[in-house]
Amino acid sequence: MKIKGNNYRSVWMEHNSIKIIDQTKLPEKFEILELNNLTEVCEAILSMKVRGAPAIGAAAAFGIAQAAFTSAESEFYTNLKKAKTALLNTRPTAFDLFYTVNKVYNAIIKTDNIKNARICGLKEAQKFADENVEACIKIGEYGEKLIKNNFRILTHCNAGALATVDFGTALAPIRIAHQNGKNIFVFVDETRPRLQGAKLTAFELAEENIPHSIIADNAAGYFMQNGEIDMVITGADRIAANGDAANKIGTYEKAVLAKENNIPFYIAAPLSTIDFTCNSGEDIPIEFRDEDEILAFNEIRIAPAKSPAKNPAFDITPAKYITGIITEKGIFKPDEIINLKEKK
Amino acid sequence: MKIKGNNYRSVWMEHNSIKIIDQTKLPEKFEILELNNLTEVCEAILSMKVRGAPAIGAAAAFGIAQAAFTSAESEFYTNLKKAKTALLNTRPTAFDLFYTVNKVYNAIIKTDNIKNARICGLKEAQKFADENVEACIKIGEYGEKLIKNNFRILTHCNAGALATVDFGTALAPIRIAHQNGKNIFVFVDETRPRLQGAKLTAFELAEENIPHSIIADNAAGYFMQNGEIDMVITGADRIAANGDAANKIGTYEKAVLAKENNIPFYIAAPLSTIDFTCNSGEDIPIEFRDEDEILAFNEIRIAPAKSPAKNPAFDITPAKYITGIITEKGIFKPDEIINLKEKK
Repeated sequence: MKIKGNNYRSVWMEHNSIKIIDQTKLPEKFEILELNNLTEVCEAILSMKVRGAPAIGAAAAFGIAQAAFTSAESEFYTNLKKAKTALLNTRPTAFDLFYTVNKVYNAIIKTDNIKNARICGLKEAQKFADENVEACIKIGEYGEKLIKNNFRILTHCNAGALATVDFGTALAPIRIAHQNGKNIFVFVDETRPRLQGAKLTAFELAEENIPHSIIADNAAGYFMQNGEIDMVITGADRIAANGDAANKIGTYEKAVLAKENNIPFYIAAPLSTIDFTCNSGEDIPIEFRDEDEILAFNEIRIAPAKSPAKNPAFDITPAKYITGIITEKGIFKPDEIINLKEKK
Repeated sequence: MKIKGNNYRSVWMEHNSIKIIDQTKLPEKFEILELNNLTEVCEAILSMKVRGAPAIGAAAAFGIAQAAFTSAESEFYTNLKKAKTALLNTRPTAFDLFYTVNKVYNAIIKTDNIKNARICGLKEAQKFADENVEACIKIGEYGEKLIKNNFRILTHCNAGALATVDFGTALAPIRIAHQNGKNIFVFVDETRPRLQGAKLTAFELAEENIPHSIIADNAAGYFMQNGEIDMVITGADRIAANGDAANKIGTYEKAVLAKENNIPFYIAAPLSTIDFTCNSGEDIPIEFRDEDEILAFNEIRIAPAKSPAKNPAFDITPAKYITGIITEKGIFKPDEIINLKEKK
């Protein structure tokens, strides 16, 4: 992605150090963070300095690789196992984390000598990052065909370059449509409680001069009802084998409203987000986050002292509300994605 | 309503002065404001220091009465007309404003001498305030019958004592159910952008020890889908003759989601909120408010500098999503409220 005219990925590795764009600082400050050990990688994922299913997947993949690269031979396998466990316990919903950690871990332990294993870990992690970029470009190319000239598109949360390694899932078709000269307009749900729409999606769109407006999550229904939205595209954190999709809290609301207003609702996600071991959305664990994400803003209390909050971070959009799932292998109906199992 | 153990109304008149609880300061600070002239009354309504359809109606009614009471005889009718125009131009959606301003104004100009007219203005305004309190109690009594023991109720925005003169519309049945010893739990939509749920509804519930949790507006669908919500009650800013209801932005979203999940959705409002001159919701004007309500928080910018926002303050919930309308005359299906025309 272009930021102030330069190209960046959301996460990458330089020598033994993992670099990320600190997503909790945007849009006010653009800062690159260095993660030099397992504790720092886990903390960055937990506190959402790096967030978005594929970006978390890449950070965790580099995390395993870093653990392998920096461990002495005597504690190599112990540290590797420790890193795997710690990373898998950071956040429960996004599937790319589980996919990449297991993939890189298994590749390392299958390699017979430790020196080769270290190189293999880095290679596997880098491969995931590079393949995610390629997948996002493909998603963009397939998805762009759905966007007609003068389309007004609603998106929820941030499924952009920041949420992936680069380019984005939901934002990839939007980027390409804009590059191809289509006249488009993006409604950006602000996405409470953490405002990834108002802060991150708006940032990406503003950097590329794509016309957009931020709206309160409450207002999406209003604009749908008034015929001002032509399609909805969001990302996903985990897709079950039957096409049910977990994504940022509020996605289910938008999907129901889209169906009620006859507006097509698309999910854009790479194959690494599909979890064929989950038969349906009911099998996907939903993370509940700290109530202070709702009760306070910039550490200033919004709510009465005695009032608690409940803060589910994701919800499940049942397949019946999803018009299509845009992947790097093409666009599929939710009940068709089971056929992708062998391709993955 | 009880605040720190004392009884308050949201708005009242003492001599020539209109007193209001400053709703922009809650829950951090409890402050009573004095409004001593037309400019101050209009500003308080515009800036939402006093808000909620019946509370705005009462403040404006007192505003007309104050203008009559404080005008010299030579400019009595000029000032009265000026006050009427200024008050009617503060906010376009809530109907009680139009209802009370016209009612008090007409009562004054029909009175033949100015001295009597001044007294009549005060009396009419006070009558509206008192009748609103009685109406809210009746709404509470009728609505309470819908609430079963162990019910978990979702409400949106603030339709409590603060939004009315006292007692509330949507919160009145909840208050009485709690007083009657029913075990209830209230899900409070935080209600972006102005957070009337997190700030005002939570404040009222906390003051009366009614169990509740604040949720992001995005999470209401999640809790409905999971079978954790038994009914929805909201207020209204204007109800059309066919039962379509304008209310705080996001109400339409909750109504659609309630229907999709087979959850009853009720509107609670006094007859003063029904506008029989609007045939349907399409005739109700929707106020758009300043984009900074979305783009900034406590005057700190959330969004990128180049990103604009769109900020509709209300939406229309079509009658087909409304299970019933709870009024001081009983509970009616939306298509039955036309029969209330002569009672009003």
